Amino acid sequence: VPDLWPLRRPAGDRRLSVPLSAPRIAVDLLGGDAGPDVVIDGAVLATKRWPDLELRLVGPPADTRAALASRGVDDRIRVVAASQFIAMDEDPVRAVRSRRDATVRVAARLLRDGEADACVSVGSTGAAVAAALFTLGRLPGVTRPPLAVTVPAPRGLVVLLDAGATTTAGADLLGQFALAGVAYAQIRLGIEEPSVGLLSVGSERGKGDPLRREAEQRLAELLPALGVRFRGNVESDAVAVGGLVDVVVTDGFTGNVLLKGMEGAIGALLAASAGELDPLAMEALARVVRGLGPESQGGAVLLGVKGVVVVGHGSSSPDAVASCIAAAASAAREGLVPRLTESLETLVAHRRSDAPQAQRMPA
Amino acid sequence: VPDLWPLRRPAGDRRLSVPLSAPRIAVDLLGGDAGPDVVIDGAVLATKRWPDLELRLVGPPADTRAALASRGVDDRIRVVAASQFIAMDEDPVRAVRSRRDATVRVAARLLRDGEADACVSVGSTGAAVAAALFTLGRLPGVTRPPLAVTVPAPRGLVVLLDAGATTTAGADLLGQFALAGVAYAQIRLGIEEPSVGLLSVGSERGKGDPLRREAEQRLAELLPALGVRFRGNVESDAVAVGGLVDVVVTDGFTGNVLLKGMEGAIGALLAASAGELDPLAMEALARVVRGLGPESQGGAVLLGVKGVVVVGHGSSSPDAVASCIAAAASAAREGLVPRLTESLETLVAHRRSDAPQAQRMPA
Repeated sequence: VPDLWPLRRPAGDRRLSVPLSAPRIAVDLLGGDAGPDVVIDGAVLATKRWPDLELRLVGPPADTRAALASRGVDDRIRVVAASQFIAMDEDPVRAVRSRRDATVRVAARLLRDGEADACVSVGSTGAAVAAALFTLGRLPGVTRPPLAVTVPAPRGLVVLLDAGATTTAGADLLGQFALAGVAYAQIRLGIEEPSVGLLSVGSERGKGDPLRREAEQRLAELLPALGVRFRGNVESDAVAVGGLVDVVVTDGFTGNVLLKGMEGAIGALLAASAGELDPLAMEALARVVRGLGPESQGGAVLLGVKGVVVVGHGSSSPDAVASCIAAAASAAREGLVPRLTESLETLVAHRRSDAPQAQRMPA
Repeated sequence: VPDLWPLRRPAGDRRLSVPLSAPRIAVDLLGGDAGPDVVIDGAVLATKRWPDLELRLVGPPADTRAALASRGVDDRIRVVAASQFIAMDEDPVRAVRSRRDATVRVAARLLRDGEADACVSVGSTGAAVAAALFTLGRLPGVTRPPLAVTVPAPRGLVVLLDAGATTTAGADLLGQFALAGVAYAQIRLGIEEPSVGLLSVGSERGKGDPLRREAEQRLAELLPALGVRFRGNVESDAVAVGGLVDVVVTDGFTGNVLLKGMEGAIGALLAASAGELDPLAMEALARVVRGLGPESQGGAVLLGVKGVVVVGHGSSSPDAVASCIAAAASAAREGLVPRLTESLETLVAHRRSDAPQAQRMPA
């Protein structure tokens, strides 16, 4: 049996971890590009890989039961009825508000009511974020929760946030993102003192637009005071190649453009290679590409809400869905939420002791 | 003899083109990562590939003559003496102002004084932009000149701008960039009516941060009124994969992050493939990668100054330097500056006839 999460565990303080013998993951079946069958395949795959998982599949009950029956029933998979879905191109806030029975809302309710330990969706990212905010609420000290993605760069894993939950961010919000990213990297990368970089267009001090220049100064004051190693500005290769810092912080617009650009460039290279490499080499290249995608690392985790919410790519394969489920189970098992809560309390306490900073904090 | 620029020529109006029988290109020898020898190798390569070129190598005269002598002298290459250089990590504006004899300033002066038709630098991009603004000046109607890069995406060439000249841009400036990009794409891609997209995090209307939402509306009003096809928001894959629009417009911060992320992802894939593919397949893959980089397309062209200025990557190979020289020669030969001038005059005239728009125009 492979480990649920084949990565190093934190070597240091473990008192925050919440060992769950059988993590229960709510899985939103609707909203993905390929429909519920792919998500069900991923769920079944996850239960085969990790025998201690329990799943709650949230979707239309009759269809889901029929799909499960044809795949061989497993009593660790239960079906929770919900049938409204939210399309990728809808206004997510309005859709989530108006549809009480939307699968993503029902999945979030299971989490809120203690009937699941984490939830996973491959539907609209905006809808998952809206449902999490609406149903679970923010942790104290969080203005807007960021999405964190773990990029398996060749020189080491890198946590990038925000991957697209919030398109704009001021310097204060980037400070919150940095602390949330550090707490997540401690669990996810198993590093006691993760280092942080600010994404910019040069690594020298003062590079970037006015937001980056302000944020660099703010983070250089804030993070060391909270015991976090801040390495200043980094460029895109800190995400794509890795090995420079453990956590890269940016606004959700830039983070999303960067991730989609990296994905697009890799896809372009695959397409352009098709005529130049022989079939065996193409297969090997495709394997390398699958290993390099953030999808291989379990999608994006929403940080700063009162629960573990994992969002996968709309076009996730069954394998990618299984990775998202593993990421959700691992984050729940390692106590992501209590750890984030403690980290953000430190930020709030620091600001209370520092009046001018507190005045600059967004309401 | 290969064509100087192996691409389609504009099928339509040619009266703006300026056929130059022997384009004279000023080449800044200093400031690149690998020193002047690589640039000299690239210059010699360019004269071998394109017999109608004339080059002015701007650098320390004794060293440059010695380097040329060891490569076999060619009377189409002349040396212009200048010996101050500007490092990558200097404040470019201050450095350009204070060093009258900096190679990049001398190269720009050759252009201003009619002794060269275009200039090329692989030194600090900021210094090349500052030298161009300082010595050549802006075209009428240009607030801040953008850098345009031609990305050889698998589904077609895409002009991306701004690639990093100006880190911030409002909606009005993005409108200027769009028009400059269209004028450049007409020459560079040989398309009579290039289509334009605005880089965002989703292709639906209203996606993105407040800047993108404002810019999308502004471009949707402005561009069709000037006869330009505007396709609304596009995502990063419009740059990486291509085939959606001919010109992608964004601010220089986002454009630079995207380009470096694409470059980093490709580099990461190459690194990760090294252990998985056999040596022959790796060679084939490296060839595909060289063909996909913007470097294969001749660096970045600064649009909106009174002269053709091409900026290459600091780590350009001799081959990439030769491509930059070809790009500069081609832009000069096709009349980039008069064509841009006419296009921007249309923008200014449109704004004069539209009072509320004119008031919103930056000073």
